[in-house]
Amino acid sequence: MKKVLALFAASCTVAGALWSAPAAAQFAKPEDAVKYRQSAFTLIGSHFGRMAPVVKGDAPHDPAQIKANVQVLQTLAGLPWAAFGAGTEGGGAKAEIWRDEAGFRKAQQRFNDSVAKLAVAADGNDLGQLRAAFGDVGASCKACHDSYRQRR
Amino acid sequence: MKKVLALFAASCTVAGALWSAPAAAQFAKPEDAVKYRQSAFTLIGSHFGRMAPVVKGDAPHDPAQIKANVQVLQTLAGLPWAAFGAGTEGGGAKAEIWRDEAGFRKAQQRFNDSVAKLAVAADGNDLGQLRAAFGDVGASCKACHDSYRQRR
Repeated sequence: MKKVLALFAASCTVAGALWSAPAAAQFAKPEDAVKYRQSAFTLIGSHFGRMAPVVKGDAPHDPAQIKANVQVLQTLAGLPWAAFGAGTEGGGAKAEIWRDEAGFRKAQQRFNDSVAKLAVAADGNDLGQLRAAFGDVGASCKACHDSYRQRR
Repeated sequence: MKKVLALFAASCTVAGALWSAPAAAQFAKPEDAVKYRQSAFTLIGSHFGRMAPVVKGDAPHDPAQIKANVQVLQTLAGLPWAAFGAGTEGGGAKAEIWRDEAGFRKAQQRFNDSVAKLAVAADGNDLGQLRAAFGDVGASCKACHDSYRQRR
């Protein structure tokens, strides 16, 4: 638990530091920011999705593997947001992101909070709690996609 | 220092756990593995490259920001390798990767070792040491690309 909290604190510090840095310093061109955030979401989707068989009961629950995976997910969860700076529209992102910054920020917060709770659940080794926390993360993904991602 | 070592240990555990899991369990289709590793390299390149202005003296050295960034890089550095499983050829990867598994594994190790040393240097706050460690990471990237990545 201590370890998870320490890692969570570290990942929050990281996310904070990245957010506070000007986007221009991180991405030379707007298309670099688009590629970066799409890459981050690809990894997030992979590390989230690979836990689905465990949560559904289709694969054995290996708590150590789940914990290690959720640690990666926590770091990844802080990454995409700094890549939605001004002038980086497009790439599957709805214009609402730049029209409704407060709403988008709230959706990010919901996601990051739900991932933090998933980390606590993963630390507890209880499959029922893991399932509930996993569902909440998935719901936060869907809510944000419904509002801010273009349908494909 | 303790914090960096703890995070390094955590990231090694993560990398180990991911490597030991069967690739098939992580990627439903070969193209998912290709997209995953390309995404990981995009993020690695971004988090490595954004430190270049500091190392070159073109941007101020903010040790806390460098440390936070290197922590992200350490997690990312463990990710791509599990996505080079059998049957995932292509996507800019040379066939040598599957012909010369030991060599490719050695190149990964060199990269991961150099990133671990970068983390120690980032913790020390000395720009000269950071510059040297940064150069070693860059050299490990280039060596691996020269042998295992197709020219674009």
